[in-house]
Amino acid sequence: MGHYALVFVGFGNVGRALARLLLRKRAQLEDGYQITFQVNGIATGRHGMAIDLRGIDLEAALACLESGGRLDRFSTLPTPATILDFIQACPGDVLFENTPINHLTGQPATDHLAAALRQGMHAITANKGPVVHAYAELNRLAHAQGRRFLFESAVMDGAPIFSLFRGGLPCVELRGFQGILNSTSNMILERMESGESLEEAIVYAQSIGIAETNPLNDVEGWDAAVKVAALATVLMGVPLRPQDVQRTGISAITPAMLQSARESGQRWKLVCRVQRQGEGLRASVCPEQVPAESVLSNIHGTSSYVEFAMDVLPGLGIVEGNPSPETTAYGLLADMLNALREDGV
Amino acid sequence: MGHYALVFVGFGNVGRALARLLLRKRAQLEDGYQITFQVNGIATGRHGMAIDLRGIDLEAALACLESGGRLDRFSTLPTPATILDFIQACPGDVLFENTPINHLTGQPATDHLAAALRQGMHAITANKGPVVHAYAELNRLAHAQGRRFLFESAVMDGAPIFSLFRGGLPCVELRGFQGILNSTSNMILERMESGESLEEAIVYAQSIGIAETNPLNDVEGWDAAVKVAALATVLMGVPLRPQDVQRTGISAITPAMLQSARESGQRWKLVCRVQRQGEGLRASVCPEQVPAESVLSNIHGTSSYVEFAMDVLPGLGIVEGNPSPETTAYGLLADMLNALREDGV
Repeated sequence: MGHYALVFVGFGNVGRALARLLLRKRAQLEDGYQITFQVNGIATGRHGMAIDLRGIDLEAALACLESGGRLDRFSTLPTPATILDFIQACPGDVLFENTPINHLTGQPATDHLAAALRQGMHAITANKGPVVHAYAELNRLAHAQGRRFLFESAVMDGAPIFSLFRGGLPCVELRGFQGILNSTSNMILERMESGESLEEAIVYAQSIGIAETNPLNDVEGWDAAVKVAALATVLMGVPLRPQDVQRTGISAITPAMLQSARESGQRWKLVCRVQRQGEGLRASVCPEQVPAESVLSNIHGTSSYVEFAMDVLPGLGIVEGNPSPETTAYGLLADMLNALREDGV
Repeated sequence: MGHYALVFVGFGNVGRALARLLLRKRAQLEDGYQITFQVNGIATGRHGMAIDLRGIDLEAALACLESGGRLDRFSTLPTPATILDFIQACPGDVLFENTPINHLTGQPATDHLAAALRQGMHAITANKGPVVHAYAELNRLAHAQGRRFLFESAVMDGAPIFSLFRGGLPCVELRGFQGILNSTSNMILERMESGESLEEAIVYAQSIGIAETNPLNDVEGWDAAVKVAALATVLMGVPLRPQDVQRTGISAITPAMLQSARESGQRWKLVCRVQRQGEGLRASVCPEQVPAESVLSNIHGTSSYVEFAMDVLPGLGIVEGNPSPETTAYGLLADMLNALREDGV
């Protein structure tokens, strides 16, 4: 279907995993979708920027970063002063925004995405911030520009949630949902069940790279509340801010409570719940004792789960089991294909 | 997007549930999708047929059948001799095929669907038979006619499985899947765990209307094998016949086995498994002891489950929890919208 120029803003773990996935899937994209690509620009926070409208050598750029180098030597233009200048100077078809999240403001990601859309690029991100803080505005801008604002990986990594509702679930009435959306707190509770203290479990989650930089975001339910707000805003059509979610973290859950729940055939989980209430929503993130017989009870490790209640499908559950490092990258790739394909959702 | 003429072939529980759902969603279809409809024809097995190109009064037809009447009095044409004659005589945009399934041949549903496509109608069914026996042929015919052959409700009622792969999962490598696809045998095993005999549990499943007319189809794993064949054929691109699925039913599972599994923290389930093996597939439906900690273990009642293993999404599970009578009907409605919408999947 064509040859496309890609632009990366933010090139940490997620951006690099996407670059590697694009390289791995290159032949499949060409054979299956008639899509070829080049990378016109990469902007990092601390390792410089590169713009080359003939296409940056992506393997070489990855290797350079992995050996601690800076990207500027791949650039054919002087390094722009800011990321917004970079976006202005770097034309392309698709911009991937993967700078660190700011839960409170959604910035600077929102400004980057808006700039990309104004430049006529599809704007794709794994970042929840812009979804909860600027969904309506970015969506309007995308429509006006004939481009897409997509963010599949913002919730449950690359599991297809937003695209499922855009594509496979026309004409449903979504009444609410429940789930386990923060895998770090879920894993912490499991490790505390096996005898670790909260602090030990946090250290473990950090050691395997799943905890947020500030673990309080996970432990206090803030990350889950942001995901709840993103799902509710997009899928239920009711703008919900993270601070509107009634939120209780897991820090008051003790090993004794976990043990006594197990003895009565239950298990503590940090459960997200959203229900329509009049014109609005009632939303919460709160530890709950769930029965051993429930699907919620059997969400383990780094897995997560959401179950949607609809008029015609009383309980449609999506389990994301043991996401790989590629899973978030895949959500971004799927967004790109949905933006570029004529029959994309 | 337009006014469409619908045709029903087979008007038992599923066809009537669809008719009621269409009536209930009429305003939403018009407001949300600019779709209005009329019903040009209804053909039943034992209650006559009706054709009226000005549109049959659907409420009246439903009421007539529910009070034991025949449909012929709604017809403006002489009753055709056969269903194929009916399809010839009844032009429309979408044909819903819901005659009883024949697992061994896929007939007569396949002939009905082919006739509909040749007449220029989209062909939609909840029937697994044509999917496992004539997928390639019906799909080719649909492409040639610029129409769609869709069958979301053939597996897991109306849960979006086929549409998920058409829409939200581009460029994945599907390596295999596992699941619990026959809810009757699952419920029978659960009731046997609580002390019922196989025969008592079958009678119960029949009393709530979930067992197939011939319960051996459920108990011997045949229904699950047909679903396995449908999923593998469509999603993995490898034609698989139900008889190619290694199949063991649940009739050899005794209450003592169920009890002893529970004591060791496990549970017997009739598990479907498919994996790629060279160019082909290894497929089985077989009772297994699954660990209490697995999602499979917590699929209860009339719920079902499938978990897909993909390169980029190691375990994407779909739970269909407690489907309502409308759920199968919804799959047919979603197919219709996907066929008619410009941005359908």
